[in-house]
Amino acid sequence: MIANSHTGKLILIGCGPGAADLLTVRATKRIAEAELILYDRLIEPEVLEFASNDAERLYVGKAPGDGGVQQAALNEKIAEAVAAGLRVARLKSGDPMVFGRASEEIAAAIAAGGEVEIVPGVTAALAAAAGSAISVTERAELQSFVVTTGRAADKDAPPDWASLMKPGVCAAFYMGVGQAWRIQSTLMASGVPGHAPADWIERAGCYDSRTVSTTLERVAHAADAEHVRNPAVLLVRFPKSLAADKAAAAAQAR
Amino acid sequence: MIANSHTGKLILIGCGPGAADLLTVRATKRIAEAELILYDRLIEPEVLEFASNDAERLYVGKAPGDGGVQQAALNEKIAEAVAAGLRVARLKSGDPMVFGRASEEIAAAIAAGGEVEIVPGVTAALAAAAGSAISVTERAELQSFVVTTGRAADKDAPPDWASLMKPGVCAAFYMGVGQAWRIQSTLMASGVPGHAPADWIERAGCYDSRTVSTTLERVAHAADAEHVRNPAVLLVRFPKSLAADKAAAAAQAR
Repeated sequence: MIANSHTGKLILIGCGPGAADLLTVRATKRIAEAELILYDRLIEPEVLEFASNDAERLYVGKAPGDGGVQQAALNEKIAEAVAAGLRVARLKSGDPMVFGRASEEIAAAIAAGGEVEIVPGVTAALAAAAGSAISVTERAELQSFVVTTGRAADKDAPPDWASLMKPGVCAAFYMGVGQAWRIQSTLMASGVPGHAPADWIERAGCYDSRTVSTTLERVAHAADAEHVRNPAVLLVRFPKSLAADKAAAAAQAR
Repeated sequence: MIANSHTGKLILIGCGPGAADLLTVRATKRIAEAELILYDRLIEPEVLEFASNDAERLYVGKAPGDGGVQQAALNEKIAEAVAAGLRVARLKSGDPMVFGRASEEIAAAIAAGGEVEIVPGVTAALAAAAGSAISVTERAELQSFVVTTGRAADKDAPPDWASLMKPGVCAAFYMGVGQAWRIQSTLMASGVPGHAPADWIERAGCYDSRTVSTTLERVAHAADAEHVRNPAVLLVRFPKSLAADKAAAAAQAR
């Protein structure tokens, strides 16, 4: 790594969910200008082809269970490169501000006297929606859209899924395969009807993406039967009319 | 409009929130291949420069209050062009599946015997987050991210903001300027602390974007004092530690 006289800069770049042509034009330019490229596990090899031949490329991925490069070591690497005046492109799958651990890396670059730029990207839930032609909002039926995770960080409690899944909401669960039973049973226990539409989108935004369409009461079964694997997004929709149907059925039963 | 022998195709294209270099590479290619371009009010002129010189360009925007092209007429236009075998690019600001009225346009194209492709885009909330360096998720603090609207369609009830804004949630309100008082008072009445961080991001993703940082209890005042105008995104964060502080303060007061 060669130090230079510029102020160092960290550019956090959202690379979208997979296919290289889902990068923004700005992302491709910033990658091409970078002197050091830090990339992780879900970045497709074609994305690295936007980089200059002179750029140093460094894999900093963490696969589940493999240990990998720890976040603290990565923050240190960023600080060191920025202090040396380098233009550092940190490639993140999806969007850098969604489950991207961006704050720690930004803080490391600022503390090292560098500048920071953030390039937004297409987040996996929206690639999943586009690929399966599912609107995550729908006039009068779905007014809010929730992005949450099926997998909390070590020791953290999982998100309060039940409180978010109200009538009028479409929720996207990232990395939910291992928690399929828990998501299904938590939502059903909180009153979401079993026949609410639910779709698994495996490898959203990649050319080999696959959609498994089912209903909430069969979410875990479908994942198992169809061998759905992470990275996958689960979209669950609770349209207002389903809540109204349920209320009418309950009234009739009385 | 010249009919041709191909099967017609509707391509719904997310054009991101403003700046033309926030289009994806795929979006620029699909625009260049289109024979008819349908675009609306928030599409920047530079985006149209990706189009072929031979393409017909048609403005189909609806400004608030100006009447504009009604959705039914637009659906009809799409059906007609697709039936004539044209490749129709429908440019949407942000992502087409988020507040994009996509379902109706998809249905029109399918009914006319056409194919449909959807190209996801950068949604305004994520451009807002990137531009103001705000992570919408944060380890242990913010586990879910909600996108909702400050402005319901005519006659529809507004979204149930209070039920979505729980500890651990960051919420993005689209087009919320006119509802600033209502958002602020609804959230505070439901228990979100007045000092929760809140940021207005005007024209997120555009080069003249502006961030006004404040707290929930000053959201409406800040919008007024700083003359914040739509299109604007309001990001409100309710980190888990704020909820814990509040609980501790309540316990001490007893």
